[in-house]
Amino acid sequence: MIANISPLAPSYTPELPAIDGITLRTVCAGYKNWQRNDLSLFLFQPDTVVAGLTTQSACPSPEVEWCRAAIKKGKARALVVNAGNSNAFTGHKGREAVAAITARVADHLKCALHEVFVSSTGVIGVPLPIKTACDGLEKAFSAEDVNWDHMANAIMTTDTFAKMSRQDITIQGKSVKMVGIIKGSGMIAPDMATMLGYIFTDAAVAPELLQKMLTKANKKSFSCITVDSDTSTSDTVLAFATAAAGNRILSSEEDKDADKLQEAVTAICLDLAQQVVRDGEGASKFISVTVNGAVSDESAHIIAMSIANSPLVKTAMAGEDANWGRVVMAVGKAGQPAERDLLSIRFGGIEVAAKGMVVPNYDEAPVAAHLKGKEIDISVDIGLGKGQAQVWTCDLTHGYISINADYRS
Amino acid sequence: MIANISPLAPSYTPELPAIDGITLRTVCAGYKNWQRNDLSLFLFQPDTVVAGLTTQSACPSPEVEWCRAAIKKGKARALVVNAGNSNAFTGHKGREAVAAITARVADHLKCALHEVFVSSTGVIGVPLPIKTACDGLEKAFSAEDVNWDHMANAIMTTDTFAKMSRQDITIQGKSVKMVGIIKGSGMIAPDMATMLGYIFTDAAVAPELLQKMLTKANKKSFSCITVDSDTSTSDTVLAFATAAAGNRILSSEEDKDADKLQEAVTAICLDLAQQVVRDGEGASKFISVTVNGAVSDESAHIIAMSIANSPLVKTAMAGEDANWGRVVMAVGKAGQPAERDLLSIRFGGIEVAAKGMVVPNYDEAPVAAHLKGKEIDISVDIGLGKGQAQVWTCDLTHGYISINADYRS
Repeated sequence: MIANISPLAPSYTPELPAIDGITLRTVCAGYKNWQRNDLSLFLFQPDTVVAGLTTQSACPSPEVEWCRAAIKKGKARALVVNAGNSNAFTGHKGREAVAAITARVADHLKCALHEVFVSSTGVIGVPLPIKTACDGLEKAFSAEDVNWDHMANAIMTTDTFAKMSRQDITIQGKSVKMVGIIKGSGMIAPDMATMLGYIFTDAAVAPELLQKMLTKANKKSFSCITVDSDTSTSDTVLAFATAAAGNRILSSEEDKDADKLQEAVTAICLDLAQQVVRDGEGASKFISVTVNGAVSDESAHIIAMSIANSPLVKTAMAGEDANWGRVVMAVGKAGQPAERDLLSIRFGGIEVAAKGMVVPNYDEAPVAAHLKGKEIDISVDIGLGKGQAQVWTCDLTHGYISINADYRS
Repeated sequence: MIANISPLAPSYTPELPAIDGITLRTVCAGYKNWQRNDLSLFLFQPDTVVAGLTTQSACPSPEVEWCRAAIKKGKARALVVNAGNSNAFTGHKGREAVAAITARVADHLKCALHEVFVSSTGVIGVPLPIKTACDGLEKAFSAEDVNWDHMANAIMTTDTFAKMSRQDITIQGKSVKMVGIIKGSGMIAPDMATMLGYIFTDAAVAPELLQKMLTKANKKSFSCITVDSDTSTSDTVLAFATAAAGNRILSSEEDKDADKLQEAVTAICLDLAQQVVRDGEGASKFISVTVNGAVSDESAHIIAMSIANSPLVKTAMAGEDANWGRVVMAVGKAGQPAERDLLSIRFGGIEVAAKGMVVPNYDEAPVAAHLKGKEIDISVDIGLGKGQAQVWTCDLTHGYISINADYRS
């Protein structure tokens, strides 16, 4: 089922450090007829805090509903991630599966139900089999500890490479570690969270502040990527902080070095988000879309997303075609203030159109050379104000059609 | 340049009647290096009225801007349609081309400038050559009259079949004819899927009422189709009425038989709109999406468009895959009131999911059989209210990628 590794996979995989207070286990529960780990169990020491964001879908999975409620309590002792079955749109059976998993783990750890988090990813509409899950948990309780690499692999579904990121910071003189893993490749869209992403740190931070930081980071990362404009029913991003680093607990943005933690959270979210785009279904180009000069940042974001979601722009990039007319089209359809005769467009920094028409003596050769690369920059200046935004997407290729039209669930 | 005819082309092409007061001419101006008619001239008798709608793009072509202004005057003596060059995003040069064309025709007919309408379709960013256009007009002024079939073919770009429709009605005892032609969505060299649609009738109707009727019809037709969610810079629909049928002029919706004219306008718009979908780039399935039970008609329309524009739903249909989970996803992401556990979904009238989960004893066989056909029905009941909507789209196939990514401008 796993295809060739995406040509956009990072050439360098970071080595992720162990984080004090976190124990990692993964086993093959057997959600599908396969020989791979598909149930992952993350165990946290007492007093670990959690923050999280979930899909804005009106049809979320029961796991998302569970997490939404549990995040509000701010404490975490465990996270279970199931791969191969999303358990979404499975009615009372799906809710029963989540209840069984959280009850089994809470009983094992002697903790509160709301300290157990669950995510599931895979096919929609098939209830997660409770016995398979609980048997898997028993195995996991007594399994050997593993490292982040194993976990990043075990949460994948149609991903072609494991996605990991790390940040190392110093807070109040204490060395603080932060790692993140994520899965996602298709059904990746704007609008809040996306896919399943997890961030772990030994920083000491109040859950309310961690939530604030994650929300801020999300606006600049997960909310700025799109593979296919389709928002999943299961999108979840959770951040866990064990406090093992021993810094004085951060509870306000004004606290010393709180800005460093915010920067690290934002950086790790952005790195993870971009890795998802690099594993976009069928992707052959990583495309950065920058919009300046809009009437507001929000307007710039909407225009950038209109470009990044346009099938005609994405297919033009796949074809290495400097078809800037399609960018004009995508700006025009965004429903945001724009004026044709003020617009300018650049590919790879080279201006191709300005003031409502192609630039004088336009030379396509350097633009064509840029488009042959794997990293494409599209930049638009609206010419009306100071609003700016940047988003990331991939091209639309035959690979996307093959994965999604030829694949049978 | 024209590829194989779309497998969804109607098997029946209507014969369109001549309409009193309208003269048709088409010639090869030579906008590209080809031997086909690419300049079409429609001449209207004095007192012909016009109504029209144009793209909502913020970056419209100068033709669109011209038509927007001229429509307000309500009178028409001529329409010029250029195929092969959209003249969009061409700055002052583009505006000069429109000015030259309208001036030449107005001079020839001794009419006002605002009685001359122009549309152009084709590549973006290349100014329409004025000499080519004016030489073409000279030829057209003295060319032989032709019929609708010639015109429907001459306005095509990447379309694979000519799209025509007719309605015959009786208004106040007078026989009234109505014909429509349209171009849009193609197979080989799209820089944009522009849609140009024209409706002609000999009914006597005030321009304000015709505009009202066209706006109403548009809401149920052109606004309810999507091939790829990309809105053109040149979309234009114009309706011309010569008054030659001799009915008492209709000026109010309350006038006798005004409802008949409204019905005919709506029916012809819907037929033309659906023909565009049937010629959607790469289309192999014609998909009807119906949403009932939304909180309002507008909400139903947004949900239906979310389903119709979802790449994952469209690729599932291409793969003949009864992947209703993707429909759930598209409902969930629409940003409209919906409740997972009230939702029900049907393919070809067969209920597959209800109350938040798959139906008991779901049998995929009859659904799979429906999906193997060329006409697919997806129906969703939101279960919250009485809002309803219907939209039409096509599937997303390798053909779409080939047309738009493999082509080099």
